[in-house]
Amino acid sequence: MIILLLLLFFTKMIAGAPSDSTVFGYIEEHQDIYVQRLKEWVSIESDSSNPEKRCQVVKMMNLTAEQLTQLGATVELVELGKQKLQNGNEIPLPPVILAEIITDPQKPTVCFYGHLDVQPAKYEDGWLTQPYTLEEKNGSMYGRGTSDDKGQVLAVLHAIEALQKHDLPMNVKFVYEGMEEVGSNGLFKLVEERNSTFFSDVDYIVITDTSWLSKKPGITYGTRGNLYFFIEVECARQDLHSGSFGGVVHEATSDLIFLLNTLADSSGRILVPGIYDAVANISNKEKEYFEKAEYNLEEIKAKFGIKNFKYNTKEEVLIQNTCYPSLSIHGIEGAFSASGTKTVIPAKVIGKFSIRLAPKMDPSVVEKQVIEYLHMKFAERNSPNRINITCVIKAKPWVSTDTDGPLYLAGKNAIKKVFNSEADFFREGGTIPIGPQFYEVTGKSTMFLGIGGPDDAHHGQNEKLDRYSEASSKYLFL
Amino acid sequence: MIILLLLLFFTKMIAGAPSDSTVFGYIEEHQDIYVQRLKEWVSIESDSSNPEKRCQVVKMMNLTAEQLTQLGATVELVELGKQKLQNGNEIPLPPVILAEIITDPQKPTVCFYGHLDVQPAKYEDGWLTQPYTLEEKNGSMYGRGTSDDKGQVLAVLHAIEALQKHDLPMNVKFVYEGMEEVGSNGLFKLVEERNSTFFSDVDYIVITDTSWLSKKPGITYGTRGNLYFFIEVECARQDLHSGSFGGVVHEATSDLIFLLNTLADSSGRILVPGIYDAVANISNKEKEYFEKAEYNLEEIKAKFGIKNFKYNTKEEVLIQNTCYPSLSIHGIEGAFSASGTKTVIPAKVIGKFSIRLAPKMDPSVVEKQVIEYLHMKFAERNSPNRINITCVIKAKPWVSTDTDGPLYLAGKNAIKKVFNSEADFFREGGTIPIGPQFYEVTGKSTMFLGIGGPDDAHHGQNEKLDRYSEASSKYLFL
Repeated sequence: MIILLLLLFFTKMIAGAPSDSTVFGYIEEHQDIYVQRLKEWVSIESDSSNPEKRCQVVKMMNLTAEQLTQLGATVELVELGKQKLQNGNEIPLPPVILAEIITDPQKPTVCFYGHLDVQPAKYEDGWLTQPYTLEEKNGSMYGRGTSDDKGQVLAVLHAIEALQKHDLPMNVKFVYEGMEEVGSNGLFKLVEERNSTFFSDVDYIVITDTSWLSKKPGITYGTRGNLYFFIEVECARQDLHSGSFGGVVHEATSDLIFLLNTLADSSGRILVPGIYDAVANISNKEKEYFEKAEYNLEEIKAKFGIKNFKYNTKEEVLIQNTCYPSLSIHGIEGAFSASGTKTVIPAKVIGKFSIRLAPKMDPSVVEKQVIEYLHMKFAERNSPNRINITCVIKAKPWVSTDTDGPLYLAGKNAIKKVFNSEADFFREGGTIPIGPQFYEVTGKSTMFLGIGGPDDAHHGQNEKLDRYSEASSKYLFL
Repeated sequence: MIILLLLLFFTKMIAGAPSDSTVFGYIEEHQDIYVQRLKEWVSIESDSSNPEKRCQVVKMMNLTAEQLTQLGATVELVELGKQKLQNGNEIPLPPVILAEIITDPQKPTVCFYGHLDVQPAKYEDGWLTQPYTLEEKNGSMYGRGTSDDKGQVLAVLHAIEALQKHDLPMNVKFVYEGMEEVGSNGLFKLVEERNSTFFSDVDYIVITDTSWLSKKPGITYGTRGNLYFFIEVECARQDLHSGSFGGVVHEATSDLIFLLNTLADSSGRILVPGIYDAVANISNKEKEYFEKAEYNLEEIKAKFGIKNFKYNTKEEVLIQNTCYPSLSIHGIEGAFSASGTKTVIPAKVIGKFSIRLAPKMDPSVVEKQVIEYLHMKFAERNSPNRINITCVIKAKPWVSTDTDGPLYLAGKNAIKKVFNSEADFFREGGTIPIGPQFYEVTGKSTMFLGIGGPDDAHHGQNEKLDRYSEASSKYLFL
């Protein structure tokens, strides 16, 4: 209900809305239906990174379109063509939903964005419940996508449904996609193509795909970009016995481990020459935001079982996580990864790592720097193995320049009314690729107004969304 | 049939055997039954490295015991207690089969050893057929375990079955286990316990679990040892989002990659101090063996798609692969290993590598050297992450000192009679942990007389055993 309250007060600021009590009562009565809908959505394994699950992503898009139609929206499912896979095969991209509910062309129009695809999840990864079966425990609803981002999308739809029972005081548009987790393929072009039509009468863009830093609600005004790389090294046509070949072949895995190890030093500083050149300075206003933001290092450490952060103060952690690039090694495809032992020399291995980009860093420049650096390092190794380095996700960083404008002011005031506290302003360490694209192409004021909690475990095991907010305990979090 | 011929002539040398033709005819008629039996054995997924498949290993042991009973053998299934897993759980070890067919206590007794467990195999690894479904193509029988080692064990049983139709000219004993691929847990102790009983009247021990270097048959007189290590690094209690935490946590995967990269230089030379100290010199007689051995580097390279070996001559490759230690990195458990992309910081990763040991290297000494070295390197990195290094397989190297004795002479003569060529003598780069144990504990002459082909792909994808030998094309390879 928090998102509804936010929206309600938010629309009051920019339009004029119904009395609170009418809508609240409706929400209270419909809680269980809302949770039931989320359960249905979570059960669809819409993992966009896995080509075999593509039909599930498409199913998810169709289900959302149906839900929007029931709200009275005009819905268009825009087909975006094919996706070319690493192996050369092509599979269809899921359609993007463009939808709208126009109540009165004279009223302001808010466009909501969210995504219906999810990150991979397997019970064996360490989930305490089946990841695609919603289960509620102690007020938290567990399941892949509950918080990132199915639950947040549903919260918007439910808020609008509730507002409609009285009178929707604004026009609403929707952009919902199914490829966010792998770089929003095809959506960038669509935004350009529809800039002078679908987006022309949009006044504000609100992205509901972020989390708060703490239990204290807040607004995200910037995101990091992301470049995701594959390093493929091949030493043979098939896996070899480490007894029969150990010591006489140049092993692909050793080459890969060497390359991955050249990427950053022990402090995490990226060793690719020139990569820090474009990193922007932080303004005094932003420094103030970071100082004010509620973010309890000890709580986060305890929650996730992290022994020590690299930095000791809240400000340092927040600044490093959101305003500087970082490099993470995610894993190796093709090597032995099961439990137990296997004495194999893997024939072909694919190392996977990504670099989060700070605002002002140009993805194309960094991509070139990284690939050149790795080829240079590989040449030094003098290995006869075949190598192929590709950048498979390329998403821009972004930071808003109008945080004093009417959209942010409305959001801030709405939060103040609901929670009786100042909104935290922060940047997000993660990436929502479409944010900068909306802003740059349409020129409309854009804001991230998420409802994810700081411990919702996006992308990790046991992802959840809280049903109630601690700050406003009687209301449903949906 | 090659193994039968070998056995037949081999028994002639040491005992006295029936006329060839009687037995040959029997084999010719029963080929299809033999292949059918192998098909049944291959269908049992007896992967000893995977605790979840333990019941399949036990099933395989029982099936083999049944087969031996049908041969008239007295069979004992010896229970060996429990195996303690990494996670602290305990599961039962599969029983070891001790069996015997005593025809006449005055005649010599040959004891055969083999194993019924297999390495892991999944169709997705790149198999062209289902790994646990035997399929014959162009005279090769494909399936996990066909050559390593189910097919070789069956070849012995079939040869004895055929000899029995005439008159078995010797006593035969059998030691068959189900934990060879992970270090023969429990069997070492059993050999000691039964040394003065089961092994007391054994004259010769023949291990059928090796391959020839080429199409030319040969005898293995030494094996490398193996130490298999797990490096476990943990940075959090659960996986983290690389956006939300990238740049501020010390990532376990980076620590692990760093450690794995410190193990060997780009030439493959192991960097653990002192590790080469005990490596034995190669005698002139052995150098001659390596010079004489048939091993075609170009053919092997073409077969496996290897661009270049580290060494240019046959002798160098054979010596490096069998008489020196080598280190192979097998993979990482706990990191992202699927296809596609996942922007995760893995919470706990387990790096897996092994070191093949050359004769004279003491596994306990090397284990200590490796663990100390890795802890020293980890300390240099100054990471707050939890680390645990364990050695999960510890198998001794071995080289025979009686290659001029009667057992080897018999094997050599048998090969000469069957193939009309000199037997190659070589060492094996792989590990058969029980070899040195038999030799050291029982003091009996021990020989490896395998029938695996050089391209059978033990431990790799598309493992196979040829039905016919090129050198003697009319006979079944079983």
